[in-house]
Amino acid sequence: MSENTKNEKMEAIVSLAKRRGFIYQGSDIYGGLSGTWDFGPLGVALKRNIMNLWWKMFVSDREDMYGVDAAILMNQKVWKASGHVDTFSDPLVECGNCKARFRADQIDVSKCPTCGVEGTMGEARQFNMMFKTNVGPIEDENSVSYLRPETAQGIFTNYKNIVDCFYPDLPFGIAQQGKAFRNEISPRDFIFRSREFEQMEIEYFVNPNDWEAAFDMWRKLVWDWCAAIGLPTESVHEDEIPADKLAHYSKRTVDFMFDFPIGREELLGLAYRTDFDLSNIQREAGKNMDYVIKGTNEKLVPHVIEPSFGVERALMAVLSTAYTEDEVNGEKRIYLKLPEHLAPVKFAVSPLLKNKPELVAKAREVYSMLKKKHGAVMWDDNGNIGKRYRRQDEIGTPHCVVIDFDTLENDTVTIRDRDTTEQRRVAISEL
Amino acid sequence: MSENTKNEKMEAIVSLAKRRGFIYQGSDIYGGLSGTWDFGPLGVALKRNIMNLWWKMFVSDREDMYGVDAAILMNQKVWKASGHVDTFSDPLVECGNCKARFRADQIDVSKCPTCGVEGTMGEARQFNMMFKTNVGPIEDENSVSYLRPETAQGIFTNYKNIVDCFYPDLPFGIAQQGKAFRNEISPRDFIFRSREFEQMEIEYFVNPNDWEAAFDMWRKLVWDWCAAIGLPTESVHEDEIPADKLAHYSKRTVDFMFDFPIGREELLGLAYRTDFDLSNIQREAGKNMDYVIKGTNEKLVPHVIEPSFGVERALMAVLSTAYTEDEVNGEKRIYLKLPEHLAPVKFAVSPLLKNKPELVAKAREVYSMLKKKHGAVMWDDNGNIGKRYRRQDEIGTPHCVVIDFDTLENDTVTIRDRDTTEQRRVAISEL
Repeated sequence: MSENTKNEKMEAIVSLAKRRGFIYQGSDIYGGLSGTWDFGPLGVALKRNIMNLWWKMFVSDREDMYGVDAAILMNQKVWKASGHVDTFSDPLVECGNCKARFRADQIDVSKCPTCGVEGTMGEARQFNMMFKTNVGPIEDENSVSYLRPETAQGIFTNYKNIVDCFYPDLPFGIAQQGKAFRNEISPRDFIFRSREFEQMEIEYFVNPNDWEAAFDMWRKLVWDWCAAIGLPTESVHEDEIPADKLAHYSKRTVDFMFDFPIGREELLGLAYRTDFDLSNIQREAGKNMDYVIKGTNEKLVPHVIEPSFGVERALMAVLSTAYTEDEVNGEKRIYLKLPEHLAPVKFAVSPLLKNKPELVAKAREVYSMLKKKHGAVMWDDNGNIGKRYRRQDEIGTPHCVVIDFDTLENDTVTIRDRDTTEQRRVAISEL
Repeated sequence: MSENTKNEKMEAIVSLAKRRGFIYQGSDIYGGLSGTWDFGPLGVALKRNIMNLWWKMFVSDREDMYGVDAAILMNQKVWKASGHVDTFSDPLVECGNCKARFRADQIDVSKCPTCGVEGTMGEARQFNMMFKTNVGPIEDENSVSYLRPETAQGIFTNYKNIVDCFYPDLPFGIAQQGKAFRNEISPRDFIFRSREFEQMEIEYFVNPNDWEAAFDMWRKLVWDWCAAIGLPTESVHEDEIPADKLAHYSKRTVDFMFDFPIGREELLGLAYRTDFDLSNIQREAGKNMDYVIKGTNEKLVPHVIEPSFGVERALMAVLSTAYTEDEVNGEKRIYLKLPEHLAPVKFAVSPLLKNKPELVAKAREVYSMLKKKHGAVMWDDNGNIGKRYRRQDEIGTPHCVVIDFDTLENDTVTIRDRDTTEQRRVAISEL
């Protein structure tokens, strides 16, 4: 695909997401707030399906996982110990002429992109990406806190609680889903890089001797996850970070890249963080982080494998994969080829004509029956059948059920397949 | 109950919540952050069960409801228009001697509660409860934003998006679950009044002529909700707010009060907010909020009924209702009489003796079978059977299954009931 085609596809997805009630610009009615996005009814449903699938796969269905839900506001000491206060920053430059600010590594600093004047850009300085606030009635250095820039620290700070309450066998994991915030200098690429987003993170605690086996296990599980949300194998790529480019806390990192319409970008990360975080807490909080290996007197600070997933990036990968254009009866058609278990709506139910009470009554019957059975079922009697199909295609509904005059005779309905557009007649009892 | 007994019960619940992995003080390992709480594995499970039940009852199972998930960070204009910037405040006093600060209406201002000196308290001033931050690389008045103090405004700002995308029949509702933040001067009473909490809110849009019928419908649905989470009818009380005490935006409010161990306090609220919010947006954002009644040319700005639920308060009511002490074989027993559909763990499975491989193997078989079928199943082989029962009672597990030597003979197990402590033998196939 050329750059241009890529951007066209991205724009088409953004437009569909807005038009069909998946994703809107945050605070849109007031002119927006850059880097924030609101999920509409279909976006919420898709997001919930993705997040619940993750929770089932990595928490409920496993024996070695413990869920937590830590507060977004944390004691400032957390972010000092983790290194975020000192080093979680991007290089910022300001134009001396128009005062516009930019991320230094994203622009050509010789000429200001806003006012166009050359040679006005000042020296780059480090801009900390944590949102700062004050907690409590006194506004001073002691009351400073931050919106967490990652959920991971909410896991590490609860490690001792989990060990004290549950004393799980090693290895074990702690998992969390929740919001994180980064004050990006230039948020961009739709929901790919926003200032507020949702993470799904796991810290998997292991005996340091066993880290490689655990790393391999999670590598496989990450591939299982990509398959579970329907990403094509050929669009996902492992990127082994070379030793000289690893973050200071990591001894090995594999980034999982995805071929988004905006290019090949990071979908999720898998990192071996050693005992960096627990040792920091041990030192800074003065609390013992030892784990006593069961049946022995051997104590150790566990090492950590961290698979870190972004909800919005998963959702954007799912939408990009699903977005399809084809031609039906000589007309261009747009549809979302979503896996059925992720689709916000599984069945749409329509009476052929909305002004025939006997069709409407029968259709309501079928609707209620399906809704009880499948949950995510939509009533759709808006416009003619062609328009309804077009709308349901765009939101990725796999099955459209139409009740017509034959239904009144023989209790069969038309069921139309989203991907093939084929229609079959089936008995209501077979739905 | 006397004041003293009440506080003892509250303390017992707080202690159990910490001991058993339901709820920990936020940032505990660093000395805490006042007014924040972290949910441990069992707390997350209970919270998810409550929130998912709400979503099913009020969104998925209904035809007239639209879910949204708006960003926590919103354009500052939202909070100006809503009145929060000007009026969302509590009276704050400061001691001239020791500089301690208090909420003026919660203390006797004649003597400082901290240093004990009399007559030192200054005049009360209004302290705004919104957490303030700056969004973007420039820190000035224009970049000020707030952590939302309620989820409701994220619904109102999306009203027009929903109408444009879905054009639902009136009445219809928009629902949201999510975090909200209030910088309480004195957070207190465990998770009852914290600085970070989770809300579940609905704005139900109606023709102004029909507000009373909608209000009554939601009043009934709120009672259904209380029953669904197992609250005893006699512990829930409607509190009709008298006209002269109504908030400026409300023409009718009924607070639903619950008999918590800390006393009778607000569990949730039901308010008729008229067109206050949509009209504010119309004026401040200059966007038309009209809804055109289908099949007519009649336009109107819908009025709103708002049922507003707090997740932590629901959870605290559920825990308070469930917390029970009795006596079994002359010994004091503590157990959580949780409704089965809310219990974090439905079945615990144990081998009678953990050092008999044949018992363990059989128990693992039963465990896997039950986990596949019921999801929330715990393996528990820690300590003797008495200790396991005690632990499972405290986390509210309805059924404990024990595999013993008879199981190997005849494929039956012991199943023990949490509430009656009675044990029965049943075939594995009947579980």
